[in-house]
Amino acid sequence: MTDKNLQVLLRRRPQGAPVPEDFEVVETAIPTPGPGQVLVRAHFLSLDPYMRGRMSDAKSYAKPVALGAVMEGATVGEVVTSNDPSFKPGDVVMGGQGWQRFCVMDAARLRKVDTSVAPLSAYLGLLGMPGLTAWVGLEDIGTPKAGETVVVSAASGAVGQVVGQLAKARGCRVVGIAGGAAKCDFVVKELGFDACLDHRQPLDPQLDAACPDGIDVYWENVGGHVQEAVFPRFNDFGRMVMCGMIAQYNIAPGADAAGAPPGPNLGPVVRKRLRIQGFIVSDTGWGRYDAFLAEMTPLIAERRMRWREDVADGLAAAPRAFIGLLQGENFGKLVVRIG
Amino acid sequence: MTDKNLQVLLRRRPQGAPVPEDFEVVETAIPTPGPGQVLVRAHFLSLDPYMRGRMSDAKSYAKPVALGAVMEGATVGEVVTSNDPSFKPGDVVMGGQGWQRFCVMDAARLRKVDTSVAPLSAYLGLLGMPGLTAWVGLEDIGTPKAGETVVVSAASGAVGQVVGQLAKARGCRVVGIAGGAAKCDFVVKELGFDACLDHRQPLDPQLDAACPDGIDVYWENVGGHVQEAVFPRFNDFGRMVMCGMIAQYNIAPGADAAGAPPGPNLGPVVRKRLRIQGFIVSDTGWGRYDAFLAEMTPLIAERRMRWREDVADGLAAAPRAFIGLLQGENFGKLVVRIG
Repeated sequence: MTDKNLQVLLRRRPQGAPVPEDFEVVETAIPTPGPGQVLVRAHFLSLDPYMRGRMSDAKSYAKPVALGAVMEGATVGEVVTSNDPSFKPGDVVMGGQGWQRFCVMDAARLRKVDTSVAPLSAYLGLLGMPGLTAWVGLEDIGTPKAGETVVVSAASGAVGQVVGQLAKARGCRVVGIAGGAAKCDFVVKELGFDACLDHRQPLDPQLDAACPDGIDVYWENVGGHVQEAVFPRFNDFGRMVMCGMIAQYNIAPGADAAGAPPGPNLGPVVRKRLRIQGFIVSDTGWGRYDAFLAEMTPLIAERRMRWREDVADGLAAAPRAFIGLLQGENFGKLVVRIG
Repeated sequence: MTDKNLQVLLRRRPQGAPVPEDFEVVETAIPTPGPGQVLVRAHFLSLDPYMRGRMSDAKSYAKPVALGAVMEGATVGEVVTSNDPSFKPGDVVMGGQGWQRFCVMDAARLRKVDTSVAPLSAYLGLLGMPGLTAWVGLEDIGTPKAGETVVVSAASGAVGQVVGQLAKARGCRVVGIAGGAAKCDFVVKELGFDACLDHRQPLDPQLDAACPDGIDVYWENVGGHVQEAVFPRFNDFGRMVMCGMIAQYNIAPGADAAGAPPGPNLGPVVRKRLRIQGFIVSDTGWGRYDAFLAEMTPLIAERRMRWREDVADGLAAAPRAFIGLLQGENFGKLVVRIG
């Protein structure tokens, strides 16, 4: 067992797109768990777009990471030592925290996972926060009905993959939007979407062809020119699930800072009775994890729920991998194998 | 009894703001009811912003009025002759249709009204489509809770009056927005709102003062610079009830035509978990009229629900009154006394 902790700290707040110098990789002592706590060795770290918000001190739904503190992030790993009767060394768990090799967690914040359902790293994606995000947003806002057309942006990403496959399982026509031919091919051939459009090519003719009956549900992960092309195509009673707008995170990290581009005129919201609603998975999601898992487990077993991961190797590679994530360079759910 | 019908027809489709020449007033024969039908003599005609949409052939939720056809609109009046056992001459009814003195209606579309609850003309406003609109939008989207701050645009108008008083009755802090000191005075002193802001003066300092705890519910009747000032002030989980955007009806009657100004950047919808939702009262409202009336009747009796009407005299005055409505010239619910 390594006798040092390895951590990635936030060194300074990015101006625009983050650069490697905004982070600092340090070796520190392995922390010691207190009463009711557990020491976890992380095997995988999740990298997700929301982390860009935490690097900024603009007002948001969660506190920013302090300068000099460990970057925030979810990990999965195994229990090293436990001061709580519900965990023992060797238990495989989700719920670890931070861009670091070792973390100390309150036992109540950890959850044992079953790696016979899916491999460990999948509990950061498919069966972790991104998958749960997909499920909650569809349950609470998207409410797709069989026969409806569901459009999913960032379709090959961690959340988009699950959104589309859940909607397919519920009988919808599912159209993804992704960047480049390779991702689009994957979304159709591997994930089984009905179509996938390349947002680097003109979207209007592609949407005309792929959504002849208009759009009932749009899953918004990106904003920008994709939102602009999709918005006029809503059918009456359409739902726009506002999960994220990654296209503007580097210009407006708080997502409403000055400099954010204008949005669509809201007149059609009245005429078409649209519902545009945002949500954050942590508000109500974790309390509903069992219901989520109950829907996902058979779909995974039947191979109707597939996924792709993009694995960066070693914690020191995390900053560059995260910077790439914000540019759409990852292909599938981005995780770091901590090693 | 007058032996001629008087009607206002749509003569041509307006370019921008309607002008009197877009309408034509004609005398025609009184129509004859068929089996199951009723001849109604209208006493009052309602004038409402939605009618601007019907004058245009841009795509909307309802068909446009055909050129040369009678303008669409709700009336209240009395039964003249009836070929249906549920109505008899002299019955006072709501549900009449058209900018005209006489109309023939299927009996199923009429409803007897009780003028001891409120005077006949109130069944075009407070207890008609506008009042029902207020109630449905609050029930389904606004869902105001005691202690929350509710902001209502076009607060002295037909819908806004009822929205604010219903929200007050439910224990909210209610802030109106209206045009000019006279309307604002009325909204506070007569209707009992906590404050009313003049949208002809700079709104930001007024909103700072009137909404120190932010905004939980915004009732959108207007769009434009009022929407722009209100939108950044939403609290987490805020609801924006999209009832109308009258500020742009003359530039974009279909409410999404080219030329409509951009809307707010939607980033805060994610971060604050906002819900922006449109509705049309006719979708589900009339089937719930009894529940609406049950909440309104005691409020009216206790004088906790007041209202103001702006009455234009004579059907020939309807075109100019309607043109003024789109400019905010009316003060209270605009109706025409047909005479």
